[in-house]
Amino acid sequence: MKPPTSPYLVTFDGRLKKPALTTLPPEEAPGKKGCKKALAKEIDRLDELQRRLYAEDRRSLLIIFQAMDAAGKDSTIRAVMTGIDPAGCQVFSFKQPSKEELDHDFLWRTTRALPERGRIGIFNRSYYEETLVVRIHPEYLDTQRIHIPDDLEQLWQQRFESIRQYERHLAENGTVILKFWLNVSRDEQRRRFISRLDETRKNWKFSIKDVEERQHWDSYMHAYHQTLAASSRPWAPWYAIPADDKPYMRWQVARIIRKTLEGMDPHYPQADKNETERFDEMRKVLNKEA
Amino acid sequence: MKPPTSPYLVTFDGRLKKPALTTLPPEEAPGKKGCKKALAKEIDRLDELQRRLYAEDRRSLLIIFQAMDAAGKDSTIRAVMTGIDPAGCQVFSFKQPSKEELDHDFLWRTTRALPERGRIGIFNRSYYEETLVVRIHPEYLDTQRIHIPDDLEQLWQQRFESIRQYERHLAENGTVILKFWLNVSRDEQRRRFISRLDETRKNWKFSIKDVEERQHWDSYMHAYHQTLAASSRPWAPWYAIPADDKPYMRWQVARIIRKTLEGMDPHYPQADKNETERFDEMRKVLNKEA
Repeated sequence: MKPPTSPYLVTFDGRLKKPALTTLPPEEAPGKKGCKKALAKEIDRLDELQRRLYAEDRRSLLIIFQAMDAAGKDSTIRAVMTGIDPAGCQVFSFKQPSKEELDHDFLWRTTRALPERGRIGIFNRSYYEETLVVRIHPEYLDTQRIHIPDDLEQLWQQRFESIRQYERHLAENGTVILKFWLNVSRDEQRRRFISRLDETRKNWKFSIKDVEERQHWDSYMHAYHQTLAASSRPWAPWYAIPADDKPYMRWQVARIIRKTLEGMDPHYPQADKNETERFDEMRKVLNKEA
Repeated sequence: MKPPTSPYLVTFDGRLKKPALTTLPPEEAPGKKGCKKALAKEIDRLDELQRRLYAEDRRSLLIIFQAMDAAGKDSTIRAVMTGIDPAGCQVFSFKQPSKEELDHDFLWRTTRALPERGRIGIFNRSYYEETLVVRIHPEYLDTQRIHIPDDLEQLWQQRFESIRQYERHLAENGTVILKFWLNVSRDEQRRRFISRLDETRKNWKFSIKDVEERQHWDSYMHAYHQTLAASSRPWAPWYAIPADDKPYMRWQVARIIRKTLEGMDPHYPQADKNETERFDEMRKVLNKEA
């Protein structure tokens, strides 16, 4: 299946081009109201497509979200997927790995959470943390108890290769993969952190650690760019969505999910032939009772 | 916590009273339009309560649905829970147990799917199948390889006791439990089966096995009544919702869920004191950057 086109699609040649690095919507983008209206339209369509995917029960859709803190992962998942039958949609958040998870390879914990056939699975963070936060904090590798090469660059390349092969395997076996990087600017993150400090209702979301992580901004951007370039492939494309404007971002995410599902074109299944042959008989059984 | 009152609440004294056995809405109930409007209002309120439950992250809500085929379990879950952030709501459907599941006791497979703190977990069928379908088809017990007493009645009583203790344990450890029996009449089921035969788009939902199961209607009703009477308790109440009218049924279900969450009264957490003490310092760090 060909991934839907979008100015934010990260090309498959390992290069990051301009639109994939933009944090702001284009000038001609509709305003807040227009984006919200467009989002609502996408969700209506998503609802119908999800029902068909679920009834068809042959393929699944895996959607991965990665971003810096306060870029809007949680609220985007809520805004786009609220309105979809939760029976067909599972969200998993991956935080710091547990002791049990650290006793396995780095693809183990997410594998257990992959969507079943007919389902949409959403990963809020994922195995990509292994080439992002772990790259900024290589000391985390100690807890993983793996062989660490002298040249760490080798390790990241090895992980990119593992991930590419893994995603290819999933794609070949019925899982369509879609990856979003919500690309927020450093300045917009600052504003959002300040509002978490200033608004009592948001206080609980604030964490001093997040401000500390911010000091590594440039290293993070480097790690994101490397990761996206190394792992955007036709069977598992990355989309780098400008995230400074939330209504625009949500609409773009919904649009790409909708287009992906349209490309999959799921169908309601046909009844089994052994069953349809006996439909008349069944009708008689049921009508006799009346 | 006291379960919300409702005419459909199954009392805790082991008796089933009239309203709990009604399949039709009361005469004074609003029509289709009125019920839909009331449902939409409930969902708005549910959305806010779920956000708080998720942020609070201390308790969970388990909602169990049981019913005869075509009573509307799937569509009720969709109608009531679409509109809730799927990140905070997990739906599990329990069909015929797998070989691995049969290698464990009858509470094992659902235990693995219990909602985490802060989450709403929905079971579409559950361990109650063990005192319903297994009671009608005791031959299924052979696959479970357990000791079967000569008097089967002993086994069902043992299971009721297990379930009561199990649910009490969950309730004592932070899981609020809510159970719905969607009570459809035999005649309404017949009409729904016929429409599955007549409408091509619904054909795939039809199963000959469902028509066969229908022949055991009276035994099923007996098993439901016994089960509800034996396991409706203050910490895990059953509600027997009239299911012949879908809009009314959905509204009633949403209303009871909303009232239960209101009773739980979840709150946004306060920021940690060690953090709030440093808020001013953090503000300075962030503002200096501007």
